[in-house]
Amino acid sequence: MKRIELVEKIFDIKREKNLSWKAIAEEIGGYSQIYIMTALLGQMRLPKPQAAKAAALFGLTPNEEKMLSEVPYRGEQSLVPPTDPTLYRFHEAMMVFGPTMKEYLHEEFGDGIMSAIDFDLQMEREPNDAGDRVRITMSGKFLPYRYHQPEGNFPALGYKED
Amino acid sequence: MKRIELVEKIFDIKREKNLSWKAIAEEIGGYSQIYIMTALLGQMRLPKPQAAKAAALFGLTPNEEKMLSEVPYRGEQSLVPPTDPTLYRFHEAMMVFGPTMKEYLHEEFGDGIMSAIDFDLQMEREPNDAGDRVRITMSGKFLPYRYHQPEGNFPALGYKED
Amino acid sequence: MKRIELVEKIFDIKREKNLSWKAIAEEIGGYSQIYIMTALLGQMRLPKPQAAKAAALFGLTPNEEKMLSEVPYRGEQSLVPPTDPTLYRFHEAMMVFGPTMKEYLHEEFGDGIMSAIDFDLQMEREPNDAGDRVRITMSGKFLPYRYHQPEGNFPALGYKED
Amino acid sequence: MKRIELVEKIFDIKREKNLSWKAIAEEIGGYSQIYIMTALLGQMRLPKPQAAKAAALFGLTPNEEKMLSEVPYRGEQSLVPPTDPTLYRFHEAMMVFGPTMKEYLHEEFGDGIMSAIDFDLQMEREPNDAGDRVRITMSGKFLPYRYHQPEGNFPALGYKED
Amino acid sequence: MKRIELVEKIFDIKREKNLSWKAIAEEIGGYSQIYIMTALLGQMRLPKPQAAKAAALFGLTPNEEKMLSEVPYRGEQSLVPPTDPTLYRFHEAMMVFGPTMKEYLHEEFGDGIMSAIDFDLQMEREPNDAGDRVRITMSGKFLPYRYHQPEGNFPALGYKED
Amino acid sequence: MKRIELVEKIFDIKREKNLSWKAIAEEIGGYSQIYIMTALLGQMRLPKPQAAKAAALFGLTPNEEKMLSEVPYRGEQSLVPPTDPTLYRFHEAMMVFGPTMKEYLHEEFGDGIMSAIDFDLQMEREPNDAGDRVRITMSGKFLPYRYHQPEGNFPALGYKED
Amino acid sequence: MKRIELVEKIFDIKREKNLSWKAIAEEIGGYSQIYIMTALLGQMRLPKPQAAKAAALFGLTPNEEKMLSEVPYRGEQSLVPPTDPTLYRFHEAMMVFGPTMKEYLHEEFGDGIMSAIDFDLQMEREPNDAGDRVRITMSGKFLPYRYHQPEGNFPALGYKED
Amino acid sequence: MKRIELVEKIFDIKREKNLSWKAIAEEIGGYSQIYIMTALLGQMRLPKPQAAKAAALFGLTPNEEKMLSEVPYRGEQSLVPPTDPTLYRFHEAMMVFGPTMKEYLHEEFGDGIMSAIDFDLQMEREPNDAGDRVRITMSGKFLPYRYHQPEGNFPALGYKED
Amino acid sequence: MKRIELVEKIFDIKREKNLSWKAIAEEIGGYSQIYIMTALLGQMRLPKPQAAKAAALFGLTPNEEKMLSEVPYRGEQSLVPPTDPTLYRFHEAMMVFGPTMKEYLHEEFGDGIMSAIDFDLQMEREPNDAGDRVRITMSGKFLPYRYHQPEGNFPALGYKED
Amino acid sequence: MKRIELVEKIFDIKREKNLSWKAIAEEIGGYSQIYIMTALLGQMRLPKPQAAKAAALFGLTPNEEKMLSEVPYRGEQSLVPPTDPTLYRFHEAMMVFGPTMKEYLHEEFGDGIMSAIDFDLQMEREPNDAGDRVRITMSGKFLPYRYHQPEGNFPALGYKED
Repeated sequence: MKRIELVEKIFDIKREKNLSWKAIAEEIGGYSQIYIMTALLGQMRLPKPQAAKAAALFGLTPNEEKMLSEVPYRGEQSLVPPTDPTLYRFHEAMMVFGPTMKEYLHEEFGDGIMSAIDFDLQMEREPNDAGDRVRITMSGKFLPYRYHQPEGNFPALGYKED
Repeated sequence: MKRIELVEKIFDIKREKNLSWKAIAEEIGGYSQIYIMTALLGQMRLPKPQAAKAAALFGLTPNEEKMLSEVPYRGEQSLVPPTDPTLYRFHEAMMVFGPTMKEYLHEEFGDGIMSAIDFDLQMEREPNDAGDRVRITMSGKFLPYRYHQPEGNFPALGYKED
Repeated sequence: MKRIELVEKIFDIKREKNLSWKAIAEEIGGYSQIYIMTALLGQMRLPKPQAAKAAALFGLTPNEEKMLSEVPYRGEQSLVPPTDPTLYRFHEAMMVFGPTMKEYLHEEFGDGIMSAIDFDLQMEREPNDAGDRVRITMSGKFLPYRYHQPEGNFPALGYKED
Repeated sequence: MKRIELVEKIFDIKREKNLSWKAIAEEIGGYSQIYIMTALLGQMRLPKPQAAKAAALFGLTPNEEKMLSEVPYRGEQSLVPPTDPTLYRFHEAMMVFGPTMKEYLHEEFGDGIMSAIDFDLQMEREPNDAGDRVRITMSGKFLPYRYHQPEGNFPALGYKED
Repeated sequence: MKRIELVEKIFDIKREKNLSWKAIAEEIGGYSQIYIMTALLGQMRLPKPQAAKAAALFGLTPNEEKMLSEVPYRGEQSLVPPTDPTLYRFHEAMMVFGPTMKEYLHEEFGDGIMSAIDFDLQMEREPNDAGDRVRITMSGKFLPYRYHQPEGNFPALGYKED
Repeated sequence: MKRIELVEKIFDIKREKNLSWKAIAEEIGGYSQIYIMTALLGQMRLPKPQAAKAAALFGLTPNEEKMLSEVPYRGEQSLVPPTDPTLYRFHEAMMVFGPTMKEYLHEEFGDGIMSAIDFDLQMEREPNDAGDRVRITMSGKFLPYRYHQPEGNFPALGYKED
Repeated sequence: MKRIELVEKIFDIKREKNLSWKAIAEEIGGYSQIYIMTALLGQMRLPKPQAAKAAALFGLTPNEEKMLSEVPYRGEQSLVPPTDPTLYRFHEAMMVFGPTMKEYLHEEFGDGIMSAIDFDLQMEREPNDAGDRVRITMSGKFLPYRYHQPEGNFPALGYKED
Repeated sequence: MKRIELVEKIFDIKREKNLSWKAIAEEIGGYSQIYIMTALLGQMRLPKPQAAKAAALFGLTPNEEKMLSEVPYRGEQSLVPPTDPTLYRFHEAMMVFGPTMKEYLHEEFGDGIMSAIDFDLQMEREPNDAGDRVRITMSGKFLPYRYHQPEGNFPALGYKED
Repeated sequence: MKRIELVEKIFDIKREKNLSWKAIAEEIGGYSQIYIMTALLGQMRLPKPQAAKAAALFGLTPNEEKMLSEVPYRGEQSLVPPTDPTLYRFHEAMMVFGPTMKEYLHEEFGDGIMSAIDFDLQMEREPNDAGDRVRITMSGKFLPYRYHQPEGNFPALGYKED
Repeated sequence: MKRIELVEKIFDIKREKNLSWKAIAEEIGGYSQIYIMTALLGQMRLPKPQAAKAAALFGLTPNEEKMLSEVPYRGEQSLVPPTDPTLYRFHEAMMVFGPTMKEYLHEEFGDGIMSAIDFDLQMEREPNDAGDRVRITMSGKFLPYRYHQPEGNFPALGYKED
């Protein structure tokens, strides 16, 4: 059994039962809609109670339920760059603003990254007279590169004031 | 003269004069720091008054000043996927959450995209006891796919309620 | 169920029933032939009334009918560059005239793009004594890059007269 | 001397002399603006009288003037797919509508291609209350695949009525 | 049904019935052996009378017969560059002699291409004491790039004598 | 010194002296025009007497003359697939007819290849009332795969009659 | 039926019957073990008597037996570069020693190649006190590039002494 | 000035002055040899005191010294997969053991990653009678994927015991 | 039967029987957990006694048991670079520290590689107050490039002191 | 200074001084011609005494002499697959015979590789009445995958008889 087949089955049943993602997320509960969607789309795992609820909702087998709570191999179906226009625009924004984000991050925080693991993404509709807008908010913990002292511990150096 | 060489020259003078992006943006003024940085990094154009201020600040020639206000060929230096870890995390987040964002967008708005042109990106430091976070906010106008009526005009159909 | 399999099924039935695209589009109605073809080929969605007509015409299951009105993942079967000579010529024309179109667009409109979303494509036969010609007309809304004012609103700047 | 260096030099002088493409095309004359731009951008050749005018306008050397009237190696600088958003939208439209154009062409004309050689591309501004539009018109001669008769001549078969 | 599966079925029956391509082409008739082979290999379409003969010979279903006379999506199975040594040598010859052919063509004919559509390819055995040779003859119509006059017609300019 | 720079220098002098390939080949002599062109374009070596004549014609240094008679690293500048339309058509023809040529070759000769080394390519103009044609003739020695007998010699087996 | 499926079937039966390649080659006979293995692995054809013996040994159908004696499409399953460490080392050796082999060959033989068609490869165990070694011997006919005389015959020029 | 040019300059002076990496690291001091090497090779930044020592040692300009303490664009020169055999073996080990490391990590820690930012790598010679060995020790902080509670805070869930 | 299908079957049964890798390795025994996992994941072979135990544990057929003890084609499923974030971090670490490891290795040992064949990889949890860490230890035999003496033996030269 | 530039300089002087590789190898001495060529072509290092002789022969600077004895970054200029026909044939042979060599190696030696490090390659002319042949002999030490015993030492298991 492949995770991608399970994702396809979930799409099939969602279509058949005429379910919206909003309704699915409310039914499964306990986590944000974005998180639950990402798990059902095969990019996150569902905690066991949520996997149980998903199994009930979609009529999954015990093995499928278990797979839902396993850590997936992420990103394996992705086309890079994406061909779908909706996905491509996110890619394009990251490409055009990438160097700016890198420079800004280093000037503000020092050497390091925005974590994509201790990370949260939210989406919402932003009403606007000139046409409603999509608002995406990403919040990731700043992780500084750690300097390796000879004695082997990992102090958090003041990498901006050195 | 190539745009990439101008970007390199700006980096050289920024380094020599010990300028921060924040100070540069304040000096040039009129637009957000993110926008000005993106233009100086060769991904946006600077309006002429701002190009003039940038030329004064960096000691640019008239032709270089003019190039700053020309529309650039965007993204030509990008590695896809990026090798730099700071840049890669943005790519990874878009890859992992991409299908979720697409599904969410279509359920909320119907068929269409988040514009990457009528688009705004902001970054800020988000203080947090467990370690400060990077907050990135993207706001793009939702653009619905337009259905093509036989008569040739372009009505905005209620593509969700059809 | 995968969208590509539905496209294949539609091709099979079109072949079996000896249907032309023109007849199919007339039967489904309400939208241009190009739009309906693009939807049946898996690159656009069909509004529900049209999906219902398509389902009747092709003998689709309710789930297949529903899939026809879902937003597809576009472009996933595309070879880039295309190998098919008919498709390749379109690619080649865009490659050869691409820089010209970019320069023309910016000189005429300023910084921005021709939307591929608020976009219409028409094809027609152009009679010509030296051999009939194919005429393709694309019309896309010009979308200007928006400058981000510090105060956060999104004015449409006169990016050509700045 | 490389053609790409000549293109860069033309851009430099265009910038220095504050020339628009429209003015350049009028000065060189004899052909459409799109054609002259495409030649100066290194994708077409200029006939000799036009190359002479271009040389006068841009102050080119005799060898550069001669190169302008040579057949170029087309498309060598192209990124596939393009990273620039303005260029990408053309690529995207061809990808999304590609199968439709192929099917339409074969149903209307039979087996063959739209020539990209006996081909014309025009661009114009299309005024529109909801925002002006970009209109691109491509006209290419239909070229039927020729069936090879055993006797070795190349009749134009009625490939649609066979 | 996919065209590639039909090609595979034809190979299976050819193997089973111990047919040679020569015998197949003679049986189907009306066109050159090379053309008929190319169609059965999924790169050309068969006119209907020939498709009917092929269907009788290979025991095809009506839908398979019909598919044989449809325009295929060409080149989709090609590996570029080819891995098969027989195919690779053709690729290599085009790579090594490519620039020569381009220069020769332009000097002899002016700016343009050898059509791959109005095109004929023949192969034959060339007896030779030092070992027989393969002779491949390609004949394609020269297609000149057309210059676009402002008035919009498409004269064939004397592109070599301009 | 790189071979590609020598090719570029030869192009520069050819342009400056207004030489045609035909005139160059006649001046250098001793081999076909196609061969001499291919050598000057960096894909073949010139025998020493011809290299001496080329050096005189183009005003080359002794080291450049010597390089002309060295075996080149072939194909290193090739784009695969080519972007130039003139070159692309050759690629396309090989892609579309590739499987046919392979099948034909094996049926006619058995297992083996058409040599691209013991190989000749000729081009000529083929007058035709419907528009002149380009005729390309390739003749390559058939090389059979040799079967390896246990005793280690290399008999030419009757690979078709085994 | 695809050749790769036949290879897989042969592996399955080899596993089931606990056969070694050495035993298989002895049973089939007539050719070297390396040759027979290469054919069973889908990269060479088996002569008919050997195909008959292989069919008996592996219990193949008549069509599978016939496929074994057909010329395969070589290299289609290859990953380039290979990921398997055993295969990668061969690739690496060719990459590191490639320029040396090319220079050596041209100095010793003149312009040309080592044929990969009139070619023999042997492997053997080379006992060694410091650990046994793998010895691979390749022997390929040297094929000189042929110079094309104007008169059209193909003399073997003394390409080293010209 | 490009970082890669600075790396090249450092190599040149290291060669000229006959310096070992060990001696360089001792002279610069304050951090592990691996860290200092990685910074001088353009993949980490040097804190300012170390950059000053490096500048003195290598005779760098003030701008070069400053560049050494800037955050680099990492990995831009990397070939993926690497062609160098020494580098390739690291790639190969990660490829062969990758799935194992992923499975082990998730079973031991739950869903998450080994940080490559809060990360330390050490190398040492491991004496061994059968031939000395290279020992590489990587230590990275485990970073659990954080579950996003509806209320928006980021609790560390017991992702293994859910 | 394909190795990848056997891996998938093992995952299915592991899921169904609720087995941990730790328990599986203990049950199979005789080798380290990492080694046994790597074999079950299709990247190493299991010795026959271990294959027998694995067959009993997972209920494999005799042919599947045998396949487990065959040498696999390694790395064939790998995405390069990996898309999964857990796998990507290993790739990233090798990319960022790659040049350092190469330089260190050569300075410490001379010209050669760390073997990925005579190689051991261990993983363990490293408790740490700031968050537990993942420790990965790789130990590979140093293999010096051997210099080839004219007399043909392979002495271990003192490649550092030459 | 880049290694590739040093290789180019050596080629330039070899050409100028009319040196053969054979003469160069004899002059430098101490190692096989193949080894010395590989080092001068930038894929191996020269021991110091040989580097000194090479420096004298080619008139190198002290830094260039030193670079010759440094370990190179191997394979960085390689095109994969190679475009040059001479190089391509080696690639093709490895591709066609790759699976055979892997299977043969494992049956003869067990699980492991032929080392490309403890490795020797020789080339020679093999006189033959049907045309002289190129003989390439590769001899690499067989390296068995080592099984990792729980106790941590690395016994050489009888991997074929387990």
